[in-house]
Amino acid sequence: MVVSGPESPLQTLRSYLVRRPVGLVGLGLIGGAIGLDLKALGVPTVALVHRAETAERARQRGLADVVSTDPAVLREAGLVVLCLPLDRLLAPTPQLLSALPRQALVSDVGSVKAPVLAAWKAAWPGRFVGGHPMAGTTAAGVEAGQPGLFHGRPWALTTTDATSPADLRLLEALIRVLGGRVVHCSAQDHDHAVALVSHLPVLVSAALLRTVTQEPNQLIRHLAEGLASSGFADTSRVGGGNPRLGTLMASHNRHALRHALHHYRDSLEALEGLVREERWDQLCAALQQTRDLRQQMVSPQPPV
Amino acid sequence: MVVSGPESPLQTLRSYLVRRPVGLVGLGLIGGAIGLDLKALGVPTVALVHRAETAERARQRGLADVVSTDPAVLREAGLVVLCLPLDRLLAPTPQLLSALPRQALVSDVGSVKAPVLAAWKAAWPGRFVGGHPMAGTTAAGVEAGQPGLFHGRPWALTTTDATSPADLRLLEALIRVLGGRVVHCSAQDHDHAVALVSHLPVLVSAALLRTVTQEPNQLIRHLAEGLASSGFADTSRVGGGNPRLGTLMASHNRHALRHALHHYRDSLEALEGLVREERWDQLCAALQQTRDLRQQMVSPQPPV
Repeated sequence: MVVSGPESPLQTLRSYLVRRPVGLVGLGLIGGAIGLDLKALGVPTVALVHRAETAERARQRGLADVVSTDPAVLREAGLVVLCLPLDRLLAPTPQLLSALPRQALVSDVGSVKAPVLAAWKAAWPGRFVGGHPMAGTTAAGVEAGQPGLFHGRPWALTTTDATSPADLRLLEALIRVLGGRVVHCSAQDHDHAVALVSHLPVLVSAALLRTVTQEPNQLIRHLAEGLASSGFADTSRVGGGNPRLGTLMASHNRHALRHALHHYRDSLEALEGLVREERWDQLCAALQQTRDLRQQMVSPQPPV
Repeated sequence: MVVSGPESPLQTLRSYLVRRPVGLVGLGLIGGAIGLDLKALGVPTVALVHRAETAERARQRGLADVVSTDPAVLREAGLVVLCLPLDRLLAPTPQLLSALPRQALVSDVGSVKAPVLAAWKAAWPGRFVGGHPMAGTTAAGVEAGQPGLFHGRPWALTTTDATSPADLRLLEALIRVLGGRVVHCSAQDHDHAVALVSHLPVLVSAALLRTVTQEPNQLIRHLAEGLASSGFADTSRVGGGNPRLGTLMASHNRHALRHALHHYRDSLEALEGLVREERWDQLCAALQQTRDLRQQMVSPQPPV
């Protein structure tokens, strides 16, 4: 009798896939990064992309074992991850739907979950589990994917009562082999939480940039641009991100975002009030609190 | 006849100092970083610190050639840079004033300039030129200084009509040997500009952290903390900085900060209005503008 130790996530992934490849639809930032990491681990991958030039470049970069513009490329896949922009996830084309193999588990990486789940529930009779890796950079397109993008990052899975334990374990194994940290939640809770930590920061940061642009005194404005350093660069980073992605997130999560904006305004007004009333001890105590909170939230990356 | 090329900043610094050391008052983040870089360049340095333990540790770290708690250590200095917290810069003690050699040019690194200039004009009969290197980290104290901290960073100099060309060239040479980028401005303009790009970001970022802390739904709050990733970490970094420093900056630059907060609120409300009215094309155009602005402002670091 052979006594085996606990299975590694890679073993779990392989045993669920039984030699069928992982299918990727789209090889931009997220799809390309998944493809590179799976290839390095020896997990077979096939990828469907829209344009012939993208396919050519993706092959040169080695983003998947087989890259094609022909939907038939997905035929053998045991798991398909839709790495498409939110608007295309929300309105799946008949071509895409017919390209997906009925036996495959389908997941996605969209940054808003309730509308994606609703769209796929209506359009797709097969198994679908929503996902969202919290790993963004300002890069996009076929050149953007880099190895190790998900390492130590949260990856939300919006499983439902309909999700089978086997499908859940398959997706958990995929996320773990990519180095991600699985976070389980409902689609509605996900959308409220990312409104706070992902969509609100985009507007908060964009408003900061606008404040500098719209400074009426031109001399001060130019000086501010010249004196901006690392602190400003960090605070303004997500406000300088992909405008189309920012708009899609805002429009498809507008209720949670408006709720978050409302609370944000209250928080800022409280701090502004302390400045106006020159209550410096209380301002210092408030900044002490925010420092403590940040240290809890933004902990160092876990070791490899 | 020897024809010499243009002088390097290091040659300029040496020729102005004529073997006299650079004096540093305080060896925290900024003082320590200046000391390490000057030592590596072979520029002699002496440093005055407050506590014996700090002096001992600073000697171990090699932050200056001579480190002492005895004010007499500054006696031979040709240039003294006050690397003290803002509150101590604003209320120089009689001990500090009597320790500064009357022949030396004195500068500082305080993050607000008009009140510092006013305080030193009243207290110090010698030459004083305000300075402000835009190089912050969350670190503080004798362990915080690191080599190369100022590389590619702006360093404001608030020269006045009273500043002699020789003193100006001496400070410019110091900043350039440290790799910094000299930005000339008046103290008032400096304070308005840093309110926009340094002090406002602290409150904008702290308010974002408070919004998460004060989320009334505890499940959403915990989920938000679990899903926070690099975008949130960047946007919240300066709000999680040194609370005492943040309070000092806010209190001593309160008028410019309130002006900046007022404009910020207008900017945020404009973006919020686009979300509320679902004007997505206009939101996308606004985010495109902020992206363009950020690319102009936060350019890649110049090569070494």
